[in-house]
Amino acid sequence: MSSSWVSDIAPDSPFSLANIPFGIISTPADPAPRAGIAIGSQVLDLKVLSSHPKFSQIFPSLKGHEGIFSEPTLNAFAALGRPVHREVRKVIQDLLSAETSHPEILKDDAEFRGKALTPQRGVKMHLPMSIGDYTDFYAGYHHAYAVGVMFRGPQNALQPNYTHLPVGYHGRASSIVVSGTPIQRPHGQILLDPAAEPKQPVVAPCRRLDFELELGCLLARPNSMGVPIGIAEAEDHIFGYVLLNDWSARDVQSWEYVPLGPFNSKNFASTVSPWVVLADALEPFRTKPIENPTPVQGYLKEGREDTVFDIELEVELETPQGDSTTICTTSSKHLLWSFPQMIAHHSLGGCPLRTGDLLGSGTISGPAAGQRGSLLEMSEGGKKDVLLYGMDARRFLKDGDAVTLRGACGPPGGRVGFGECVGRIRGAVNL
Amino acid sequence: MSSSWVSDIAPDSPFSLANIPFGIISTPADPAPRAGIAIGSQVLDLKVLSSHPKFSQIFPSLKGHEGIFSEPTLNAFAALGRPVHREVRKVIQDLLSAETSHPEILKDDAEFRGKALTPQRGVKMHLPMSIGDYTDFYAGYHHAYAVGVMFRGPQNALQPNYTHLPVGYHGRASSIVVSGTPIQRPHGQILLDPAAEPKQPVVAPCRRLDFELELGCLLARPNSMGVPIGIAEAEDHIFGYVLLNDWSARDVQSWEYVPLGPFNSKNFASTVSPWVVLADALEPFRTKPIENPTPVQGYLKEGREDTVFDIELEVELETPQGDSTTICTTSSKHLLWSFPQMIAHHSLGGCPLRTGDLLGSGTISGPAAGQRGSLLEMSEGGKKDVLLYGMDARRFLKDGDAVTLRGACGPPGGRVGFGECVGRIRGAVNL
Repeated sequence: MSSSWVSDIAPDSPFSLANIPFGIISTPADPAPRAGIAIGSQVLDLKVLSSHPKFSQIFPSLKGHEGIFSEPTLNAFAALGRPVHREVRKVIQDLLSAETSHPEILKDDAEFRGKALTPQRGVKMHLPMSIGDYTDFYAGYHHAYAVGVMFRGPQNALQPNYTHLPVGYHGRASSIVVSGTPIQRPHGQILLDPAAEPKQPVVAPCRRLDFELELGCLLARPNSMGVPIGIAEAEDHIFGYVLLNDWSARDVQSWEYVPLGPFNSKNFASTVSPWVVLADALEPFRTKPIENPTPVQGYLKEGREDTVFDIELEVELETPQGDSTTICTTSSKHLLWSFPQMIAHHSLGGCPLRTGDLLGSGTISGPAAGQRGSLLEMSEGGKKDVLLYGMDARRFLKDGDAVTLRGACGPPGGRVGFGECVGRIRGAVNL
Repeated sequence: MSSSWVSDIAPDSPFSLANIPFGIISTPADPAPRAGIAIGSQVLDLKVLSSHPKFSQIFPSLKGHEGIFSEPTLNAFAALGRPVHREVRKVIQDLLSAETSHPEILKDDAEFRGKALTPQRGVKMHLPMSIGDYTDFYAGYHHAYAVGVMFRGPQNALQPNYTHLPVGYHGRASSIVVSGTPIQRPHGQILLDPAAEPKQPVVAPCRRLDFELELGCLLARPNSMGVPIGIAEAEDHIFGYVLLNDWSARDVQSWEYVPLGPFNSKNFASTVSPWVVLADALEPFRTKPIENPTPVQGYLKEGREDTVFDIELEVELETPQGDSTTICTTSSKHLLWSFPQMIAHHSLGGCPLRTGDLLGSGTISGPAAGQRGSLLEMSEGGKKDVLLYGMDARRFLKDGDAVTLRGACGPPGGRVGFGECVGRIRGAVNL
């Protein structure tokens, strides 16, 4: 990878020339949401780029789709498919490269460059896609085991199906928000004394508010209803990846979730990072998943071993006083199932997956202390303090706390990452 | 209710002048999907009606929305709110009434009437709304108990939360189809011998394919994220009702559903009836729900006792040979929770409900034999034959079977109903 002529790309920037993530931006000068890509601390406005007289010439795969980057979501672009994403990303990498084959477009045209490049700090980010359906899987083995012990004891921690199929459930699409959106503490039915009989719930603000560190996968090509996506083609249905915080009300969850699964404990909010890292950008960071002791069915068998990504993930908790502590560092490789396996399973019965659908990995935890992707695990079910900077501690989130997920991989100067996925808790409303 | 001048409204037609249900239609002459209402065996094309010079005068509440019935879904109309739906329905009732105050528009204008009224048999019906999220509740007490016994035994049939909150889960929006769409038997992971240890699933076409008789509720006004809908306002968020067949793969379900709930067993297809019966049309048919032995929380307390509807429901099974048997007759009153309670609970934590969202009641079964809303219950978990006309029998659905749900209420000549919600099973694809 050559270097870029764009100034001030810090060596640790997740938005190096090796990345080229897509997002939906707006600016005070042009408040209409539209597509952009992140490069260092700048944003390249693709609507402005589309207005260049040579646009159609340098992006031949976008012929007939010249307005695609002026749309308020990335859905239409995603629907064009992997080969188009690949070509467009390569052309943008070339345009931003020090040895660009088209210096006349951006590098050497100060006026056009000034219009097309904007500092990220002045840009408002929007939800990158219109998400039709959101499915949350449960592929983080260490999380599933630890939480299973808490909810059902060590004998039943993992159900017999867990290693045979990627367990998942349908989430709520309407409450997915972009990084930075405040997260309101939900009310819910909770048991103040879960052991007391008969069970007597009260309605109160959640007392066990938690985050979940997940990788999210956004889909490109749809399948027709009734037509399963074979595992060999699943990769071609992936547009890209985001960080996902699947906020969880643990006290609501433990009371409501039998027998049909989590509901209000999850549907009040889920936060995604604003920049979609294209599937191709993560290709160099493939690695092996957690080994599955169970032989899997043919429709879940992949033709390769390196089916997940080794992305360094971290979670930072900032208190209302402004003190920050990194409470988790782990990797996205700690999954029992890959996204192609999730896609093949999801569509096995013919369920139509659509462009823009979001699949969550499930909470990602490593095997060691310091690698837990939720406070539920860190606090061992709310029994132990999680120590923070400045003599502070948490078992679950307090009002005013902010949780920031970060994820990136690659060497200095060639980092590929998501930037931040942030949400700050605000107090419950009065009912 | 006066009578209508429209000819051939049979006394048992569910589309009497007392109904006026809204749907999305297209015709060979105008293939663009648009709004219509059903009256007897005819359809009134609301796009054509919108073209009448007096349209704005007789529909004052649609001022500024003159194109609303030319849209391909009812969402924009639904979003206008209950008072507008009420006024529009009343005006249409007047236009179609024998004593209409505007005979010049339809009754006495043969040419315009000929353009606006079309026989239903020549009309293609489409999904009435764009459904953002689909939530399926579990409020059919008799069903929940019977199925709970089968899945978990009589001691754990109903979980302790069941009478405290309307249990529900997020369904799949992408696979909701309109009545008449063929339903393909899904493949899935199933246990040929569920009792054998260790569990060894195979991938095969579902062997225990079932229907579920449900009432569906489509939402009108949205709430803002973070703002719960109080029970007193919940009724105003309802647009109308449809019949819902939540097709289920029982063998897939019993293996996959722990611990996060049903997934592939439900997401291959759900069928809705094409005509949306407005909430106001069902007002005269209110009755009491199943009595809840548990005192409910304040946010679930309603100011009235008649919180559900007594709609006569039936299920007909037609074999590939063309023999039909009515296998269930029951009522939509057999619910422990009302739709306003479901709405108040769903939004308690701030979950945003949107215009067009679909809420399912859960399978509706009466207490007696002959009132079961699924084959799983009728066949007692697949152990007993359900006898059909012509010496035939079923435990679950065979390829070529068609299931028709019907629902209506009211006296002859003043019937309010949904028409049919039909799906015919076609064989699994080759994987």
